Amino acid sequence: MGKEKQVSVAILGAGGVGRCFLQQCSWIIPQYPNVSLVFLSRSNRSLRVPTWDHELSLDTWEKDLAASTDPAPSPQELLDWFGTTENEIILVDNTSSQDIAAFYPQFLKDQITVVTPNKKAFSSDLDLWKRIVDNAYPYNPDAGFLYHEASVGAGLPIISTLKDLLETGDEVQKIEGVFSGTMSFLFNNFAPVEGKGGKWSDEVSKAKDAGYTEPDPRDDLNGVDVARKLVILARMVGLEIESTSAFPVQSLIPTELESCSSGDEFLERLPAFDDEMEKVKAKAEEKGKVVRFVGSIDVARKAVEVGLKEFDKGHAIAGLKGSDNIISFYTKRYGSNPLIVQGAGAGGEVTAMGVSADLIKAIKDVHGWKKVR
Amino acid sequence: MGKEKQVSVAILGAGGVGRCFLQQCSWIIPQYPNVSLVFLSRSNRSLRVPTWDHELSLDTWEKDLAASTDPAPSPQELLDWFGTTENEIILVDNTSSQDIAAFYPQFLKDQITVVTPNKKAFSSDLDLWKRIVDNAYPYNPDAGFLYHEASVGAGLPIISTLKDLLETGDEVQKIEGVFSGTMSFLFNNFAPVEGKGGKWSDEVSKAKDAGYTEPDPRDDLNGVDVARKLVILARMVGLEIESTSAFPVQSLIPTELESCSSGDEFLERLPAFDDEMEKVKAKAEEKGKVVRFVGSIDVARKAVEVGLKEFDKGHAIAGLKGSDNIISFYTKRYGSNPLIVQGAGAGGEVTAMGVSADLIKAIKDVHGWKKVR
Repeated sequence: MGKEKQVSVAILGAGGVGRCFLQQCSWIIPQYPNVSLVFLSRSNRSLRVPTWDHELSLDTWEKDLAASTDPAPSPQELLDWFGTTENEIILVDNTSSQDIAAFYPQFLKDQITVVTPNKKAFSSDLDLWKRIVDNAYPYNPDAGFLYHEASVGAGLPIISTLKDLLETGDEVQKIEGVFSGTMSFLFNNFAPVEGKGGKWSDEVSKAKDAGYTEPDPRDDLNGVDVARKLVILARMVGLEIESTSAFPVQSLIPTELESCSSGDEFLERLPAFDDEMEKVKAKAEEKGKVVRFVGSIDVARKAVEVGLKEFDKGHAIAGLKGSDNIISFYTKRYGSNPLIVQGAGAGGEVTAMGVSADLIKAIKDVHGWKKVR
Repeated sequence: MGKEKQVSVAILGAGGVGRCFLQQCSWIIPQYPNVSLVFLSRSNRSLRVPTWDHELSLDTWEKDLAASTDPAPSPQELLDWFGTTENEIILVDNTSSQDIAAFYPQFLKDQITVVTPNKKAFSSDLDLWKRIVDNAYPYNPDAGFLYHEASVGAGLPIISTLKDLLETGDEVQKIEGVFSGTMSFLFNNFAPVEGKGGKWSDEVSKAKDAGYTEPDPRDDLNGVDVARKLVILARMVGLEIESTSAFPVQSLIPTELESCSSGDEFLERLPAFDDEMEKVKAKAEEKGKVVRFVGSIDVARKAVEVGLKEFDKGHAIAGLKGSDNIISFYTKRYGSNPLIVQGAGAGGEVTAMGVSADLIKAIKDVHGWKKVR
């Protein structure tokens, strides 16, 4: 079965998710005697093994990387280096670099297996996505494998569940849910099922202080992050979505505040627009409903939508807690009650878990799966 | 990568789940040019290819099997036959036979990959479970692979999610949920969040008429089916549970009715015990709660429990619909808000989907993964 093959793991990125991932790797990789870490990079610094039978330390990586004077290589340089070994290579891309994503087709074609939480590779232009899929296993049977569970819902089993539904021949009719931890936190507090909820601008400030938003909260409120996740899922079910601009995405940034020069200025001026959001809340409340920021894919109508929607207070989406995601798959087999996956959809630990679960599957795929007891 | 290896699939059982599975296979298997069906059995009848380069028809299997005069071979005879080929073998066991389950260790040791929804293999005595796990990949690196997603929650991603949590080093603290479609249906109707609900005996009769119970409803009401699923999950998280008798399992069969000679007699006499269940419902209602039949595993306390429990009306378990299962994983990484999977946990189509998703993974594992576009 060729199980003795050596597997070399190269990791790009050691920021928030990357750091948690390396922590998980320091527990996972030593369990597989024929798997070793051979490359690590962060910003413009990198660390690699001198020869292919060496391995980097997962205990001292941080100090070792800080002490390195090697710059980060270009994707092409990396690919050339991979070409100097017979080992199986798994490339883990924990960056959000468009340049690296654009190079996935070449990596895959050269039998490099790619594992990544990077949404950009799968939600940017359709042409790149097609080249990635066409050059990956199984469409190219001689290519590397591709795993990106954490690109939607972090560690939640979303991509794998959708794959299982599709590959076993179920007919996916609709996917709907709360895809953003930030939006979930905001609306669960702004328009709770019980109680009145806070002022919109206060909730946005609170979310920022709690670390639930990007440094500039507009990067969450514009809806693009949710739109990217929907593009990924929609393409998987067979809709050829050109980009996130190809369907309606409701932005929660008031037009007047789009040009604010900073997130701080935005937050300062946001209270002037609280009335608008209050009206949205009141309108739902009149019908006994609550408002939530959701994304949906209607497969038959080929319609993708991102924005505010009202839900009955008994609906699973209304009852969400904290910053949880919830994703419902309506399919022919599951009928009127969808298959639902719910839980934290953001955060370093759980996102890293999505990546490391993929790494374990990739190790198995490239036949390096030989675990010590 | 050895992708040209031929993969031979042998299927035991063609009843409810088995029939749906074969239907799904007729769509799946033709997509893999190097995968073929070589054996099929039902009750005491079987069908096999004359030589290993033939394959059975997935279109005419029913007629062909009915016309066959070959008896079903014993597990040992089957194993001997598998020994006459170099092909990779995937054995799909859709029976609920204890004899076949008891033979899994031998199949696995001989590099046969086993795919099954059969709970018995994993929830009967601890010794059999240990021999199965010890003789399967990865603990025996030269053995066959083992997949049993559909043994808990049918097609829902329960086993695979728990595996991912454990293998990536998360600490599972508690697993709780509604594990029986029958119990879900009964309590969602008997004690709904809104409205009064029906009489207990009426709901049991309705569930039977709708096909939601076993032919004798006592086989659902005794709680053993739920207990079996908990044994499977508890052993996965490292608790050495001897059997379903090793922890408290609440039976909903009145002691006086245990000795009824038939399910029909049981149903006739059940109304006399409606008052008892009505008291249970009223007691919960006084606190603004509803009663549900749940199972739970508290990992730190090593405590497994199956029985009635009261839930706030806003709780996800209280709000379940139809015959849905819901399983919550409380872990260190996910914190106070668990990772939740919800949806139909019983039924031929969705159970078969769990098996066929496993089959696809098994095909990939044994290197037969070469899909036509």
